[in-house]
Amino acid sequence: MKIGLIGLGKMGLNIGQNLMDHNHEVVAFDVNPDAVDEISKHGAKGVTSYQQLVESLEAPRVIWVMVPHSVVDAVISELTPVLSEGDIVIEAGNSHYKESVRRYQELKEFGIRFMDVGTSGGMAGARNGACYMVGGDADAWSVVEPVFRDTAVENGYIYAGKAGSGHYLKMVHNGIEYGMMAAIGEGFEVLEKSDFDFDYEQVAKVWNNGSVIRSWLMELTENAFSKDAKLDELKGVMHSSGEGKWTIEEALDLQTATPVIAMSLLMRYRSLENDTFTGKVVAALRNEFGGHAVEKK
Amino acid sequence: MKIGLIGLGKMGLNIGQNLMDHNHEVVAFDVNPDAVDEISKHGAKGVTSYQQLVESLEAPRVIWVMVPHSVVDAVISELTPVLSEGDIVIEAGNSHYKESVRRYQELKEFGIRFMDVGTSGGMAGARNGACYMVGGDADAWSVVEPVFRDTAVENGYIYAGKAGSGHYLKMVHNGIEYGMMAAIGEGFEVLEKSDFDFDYEQVAKVWNNGSVIRSWLMELTENAFSKDAKLDELKGVMHSSGEGKWTIEEALDLQTATPVIAMSLLMRYRSLENDTFTGKVVAALRNEFGGHAVEKK
Repeated sequence: MKIGLIGLGKMGLNIGQNLMDHNHEVVAFDVNPDAVDEISKHGAKGVTSYQQLVESLEAPRVIWVMVPHSVVDAVISELTPVLSEGDIVIEAGNSHYKESVRRYQELKEFGIRFMDVGTSGGMAGARNGACYMVGGDADAWSVVEPVFRDTAVENGYIYAGKAGSGHYLKMVHNGIEYGMMAAIGEGFEVLEKSDFDFDYEQVAKVWNNGSVIRSWLMELTENAFSKDAKLDELKGVMHSSGEGKWTIEEALDLQTATPVIAMSLLMRYRSLENDTFTGKVVAALRNEFGGHAVEKK
Repeated sequence: MKIGLIGLGKMGLNIGQNLMDHNHEVVAFDVNPDAVDEISKHGAKGVTSYQQLVESLEAPRVIWVMVPHSVVDAVISELTPVLSEGDIVIEAGNSHYKESVRRYQELKEFGIRFMDVGTSGGMAGARNGACYMVGGDADAWSVVEPVFRDTAVENGYIYAGKAGSGHYLKMVHNGIEYGMMAAIGEGFEVLEKSDFDFDYEQVAKVWNNGSVIRSWLMELTENAFSKDAKLDELKGVMHSSGEGKWTIEEALDLQTATPVIAMSLLMRYRSLENDTFTGKVVAALRNEFGGHAVEKK
């Protein structure tokens, strides 16, 4: 298949190469001409405008958009005027599912088909076999399925249903990921505080072989400890990029009890603070009612 | 190696067969003569008393105890008088690590070496390749390591150090397991409450192929949904068998913040209740201060 690819950052470049590995033709555009040059060296046809991109593809055009979520709307609004009825836009970044539903509806007015795709597996997955969760119309899915089948790991893609369902699954996937990661972290915290002297790399290794908690995340844990036995070079600051928060916001809207994932999110926020106002208030109250000592700055 | 095996329940029977698969000779005892007959059919030498067990082994004897934790002390107290200095007792059940430390010290007074072993992987693991976390003296480890190497999956065993460290690792392993399982459960809860219509077996399947949360637990999730698409046949009651609670008790003793694992444990307890007194109190208070409606029995 001939595919337009917009966005040639780390993910887009790898997806593009993965597509070409599977004999798809890639017509590639990025605002950064160096990125276009780079992927051209790997066999893509580089173009310098949306107009040129569209002219290089045959109807119904399939255009894969792989850009930061902050610029998705800008890209789509520039792209829409040059597209034709029946064309398919694949948006495979980390968008909120409600935005994907909106974009689906907006493009539908122009007869343009929109698919929302949650992508997991990181850069290595994008290059060698990703995991895709895809939402949008079934008729568009029948056109683009080969693209996902070819660039995913075996069984690593799902057509989840109506618009938004792809990014919804990715959102919840990341919520689960937050909880799993927090559980792993807390487990090693107990080991670290204990009276025993464990080799964490070896512990993660044995837990990856035959145990109930064997998982890719535990393999990454093993990798991390293999490079830095006690993670002495790191600070325990846990940033987040949105999907965990979205999962909890969704759970709140649905009035659904998800305390473990919520706690994993809140503990990430706690990790960003060196001190807390909560702590000051509680210390002050203990002092007020019981004369308990406080620590002063 | 010639090994005494005490306890021929589901785990013991499988471990015994696994040992014999790897050319170890098994001398087996259980209070239930039918269990002794059963393993004898598979090639073990069945015995009917601890005395006979001990006489069938050569010093230093290696005796694997695989009994419910409630009878470990009873078994050890009956076994101790017939053992000799230098013999090695392997306790591979789900004991609290503090009990293992105590047993190690008690047996040490008789010159008997004690190893505490956390076993993961369930019955299939016991039969075909388990995951072992082993604590105890290094000199005893050098004697028994081949037994663990042979019956574990590849890289599926660790000598973790001093007495108690094996069961400690197993305890924390299970704490992590609680958190991971809760995160998975909550994620599917959001999907189930959502406006989308997901096929949970297919969702778990795609999450097992290329995603960040791929794991044995997600594979088990996929299996469960393959048998019962919406788990309609189950109640959402989550029992627990101790190790999660022990992990949190340990975290409290260490004054270590493990809110995610703690919450996963508390939500298990919540699941055992049809109604809560907490709920009654909060409903009553809302009614008292705001006249908010309450639901009456």
